[in-house]
Amino acid sequence: MLRNRLIDGVRRLKPILCGGQSLRSLSNGATSKLTTIEVDDRSGIATLSMNLPPVNTLTMELMHDLIDSINQIESNKSRGLILTSSNDKVFSAGLDLNEMLNPEVERLRLFWTRFQDLWLALHLCCLPTAAAINGHSPAAGCVLATACEYRVMLPNLFIGIHATRFSFVISKWMMNSYQSVLPRRVVERALNQGKLFATQEALNVGLVDEIACSKEEALSKCAAFIATFDKTNPVARCLTKRMCREPDVRELLQDRAADLKECVDYVTTPLFQEGLCAHLEGLKKRK
Amino acid sequence: MLRNRLIDGVRRLKPILCGGQSLRSLSNGATSKLTTIEVDDRSGIATLSMNLPPVNTLTMELMHDLIDSINQIESNKSRGLILTSSNDKVFSAGLDLNEMLNPEVERLRLFWTRFQDLWLALHLCCLPTAAAINGHSPAAGCVLATACEYRVMLPNLFIGIHATRFSFVISKWMMNSYQSVLPRRVVERALNQGKLFATQEALNVGLVDEIACSKEEALSKCAAFIATFDKTNPVARCLTKRMCREPDVRELLQDRAADLKECVDYVTTPLFQEGLCAHLEGLKKRK
Amino acid sequence: MLRNRLIDGVRRLKPILCGGQSLRSLSNGATSKLTTIEVDDRSGIATLSMNLPPVNTLTMELMHDLIDSINQIESNKSRGLILTSSNDKVFSAGLDLNEMLNPEVERLRLFWTRFQDLWLALHLCCLPTAAAINGHSPAAGCVLATACEYRVMLPNLFIGIHATRFSFVISKWMMNSYQSVLPRRVVERALNQGKLFATQEALNVGLVDEIACSKEEALSKCAAFIATFDKTNPVARCLTKRMCREPDVRELLQDRAADLKECVDYVTTPLFQEGLCAHLEGLKKRK
Repeated sequence: MLRNRLIDGVRRLKPILCGGQSLRSLSNGATSKLTTIEVDDRSGIATLSMNLPPVNTLTMELMHDLIDSINQIESNKSRGLILTSSNDKVFSAGLDLNEMLNPEVERLRLFWTRFQDLWLALHLCCLPTAAAINGHSPAAGCVLATACEYRVMLPNLFIGIHATRFSFVISKWMMNSYQSVLPRRVVERALNQGKLFATQEALNVGLVDEIACSKEEALSKCAAFIATFDKTNPVARCLTKRMCREPDVRELLQDRAADLKECVDYVTTPLFQEGLCAHLEGLKKRK
Repeated sequence: MLRNRLIDGVRRLKPILCGGQSLRSLSNGATSKLTTIEVDDRSGIATLSMNLPPVNTLTMELMHDLIDSINQIESNKSRGLILTSSNDKVFSAGLDLNEMLNPEVERLRLFWTRFQDLWLALHLCCLPTAAAINGHSPAAGCVLATACEYRVMLPNLFIGIHATRFSFVISKWMMNSYQSVLPRRVVERALNQGKLFATQEALNVGLVDEIACSKEEALSKCAAFIATFDKTNPVARCLTKRMCREPDVRELLQDRAADLKECVDYVTTPLFQEGLCAHLEGLKKRK
Repeated sequence: MLRNRLIDGVRRLKPILCGGQSLRSLSNGATSKLTTIEVDDRSGIATLSMNLPPVNTLTMELMHDLIDSINQIESNKSRGLILTSSNDKVFSAGLDLNEMLNPEVERLRLFWTRFQDLWLALHLCCLPTAAAINGHSPAAGCVLATACEYRVMLPNLFIGIHATRFSFVISKWMMNSYQSVLPRRVVERALNQGKLFATQEALNVGLVDEIACSKEEALSKCAAFIATFDKTNPVARCLTKRMCREPDVRELLQDRAADLKECVDYVTTPLFQEGLCAHLEGLKKRK
């Protein structure tokens, strides 16, 4: 029951749940470079594109720019937010795994906190959100897509959280994004297998909502979804969305430090370091 | 784990969870006027009809009579309860929104508490329950239907919780009724959109279980559902039902005052009052 | 967030969550007689067969041997575990109801604790698990099957938790196994009805994943499921599985005594004793 706390947040027109105190200062006066925002003057919908070649790896910087852009779009009272990639092969390749290889603990803490911030900003964004998935979307790429309210995907791509394949154990809040769109039985099996779903499979289980033949069509389907909220009161919609998502974020918001500690403890085990090393070697060979 | 508390309740043949202390006194000796109860002597099933023209608006009085009737049917050891409307156009139009317009706070508190009581009485009713939805069922009408265990609906009607369209934010326990029958992904989207489902759509997503061509057929399908419990022990059935529903009611039962305060705080905001005003104006114009 | 506690458990190669302190001593030097384990040298998969004629009733002894075998298979680092029956008519007939008839309380406490231990051992088993359901699987037989990660069933059998038909009220953790594979709406209705699903129905709702024509084919389909984890890191897989299942076990692990007390209190009520008596009489007559 966080309606009151949320109302306060909405009243102040600044989501209280999205941390970001430090982020705002970081972004002071800076132009966002790794993301672009295009607002359609007619529809009022903002398209947020990840633009970090070659594969939109979620680096510290890209995550910063994403959070900054989400906050900016939210405060400009856009009618909705569409997340996409300026790269037609990869939506996002997921977290920057180099930050997890032999990490310096303080840097790792900053990196994970940034990812928590990004997920909270997108998962609790007051605006209607949709993902136009115009490229592969593995791991944290999939987490971002499932944090949106709607997903349209192009054919012949894959999407999924394949963390167990590189020895990683995701946090519960990441699982919750999966659980918010997939049946419980599918979630457990897919996470355990580290399954990557082809576009059609993803549609069949409900991981994506529609298939589109082109990026243009994907964007237009996302816009049509956002238009389904036209008759609703934006504040009531925002509070309702957050009520629905409150169980997903409750543990994280109550104890972010615990999640951070768990992550650091696990990432620094020899078990994970060896698994990650082998995975990165495999990726190099494939190139 | 509330098996023990529930057993106590069942033993005393009075549901402990359903408040109602004050209700019993209110109904002392009074004949219920806004609802009718018909018990089929052959099947032992009680049909509870809402009977407040023109559209079964859930006023303070109709809610009182519904609670009273549910309790009466439960203590008479009927074999099951079918909720329906004596009006073939509207099952129930939902809460009496006039109680929320410029409310006197004490009255609003009484009104919301009454609605909590009604939901608890129906959601936790020991008997098998089914709704014969023979008319439109928006907002709290839909909440009542989903608090039953089975739903049969006539064609060309709509059902759904469209609160965001009149700036209202429902309580979590109301969402839980939705969640108990619909997949998580459908719940969030439908609540955010304030979606009203046409009969066939409602069947497709699982919001109703069957379609019937007439009220008579709907009642008969409800009776057939109630008969599926014939081989079960009624007390074990009741305790099992309540175990399944315990997570839905836990927060509310642990802190009803918090839900009440949230409701009052929200309803008395200018934001909601303006939204409600505009909505009521719109309704008047449509007439 | 129990990743750290789980890592510790995995490191010590002994699941911390599975109790069993007393079990280990019980099994010291003893050969397991009511279960057999066959390990396929080529695949590394262990097949665990229940082997207590006539119907694999879960007696104190069979449950002991099952826990012992699960632990043994887990510590031998098998590649996966397939649970099946050496009896082609019945997978398992469920708990030994004689232990619940006019029970001596201390013995009942031991019996229920044993069942909790068995469920925890199977539900949280680090290895990939699958059930080859080659015979009827009512009540606790169904609970064991749903505690596995995959189910393959032979035709013309039934499976389900029909506790309400013999006046029993299951514990919440047993419901959670059901909930982990079935939609919420199906769970409540099936539990309330005490529904037994025929093989094809079970497939339709998702209670089983595949149908096989012979036990051999069932075992081979289970092995194929287990092979889907070949590319995953076993420790990361185990931690991920346990994270997914943590909400199912949380209450039980936090307060096993409360569940035990509830069970004893309920089983010793005249209500249940009378219901059970009638049920056992009915079973005798059918023979």
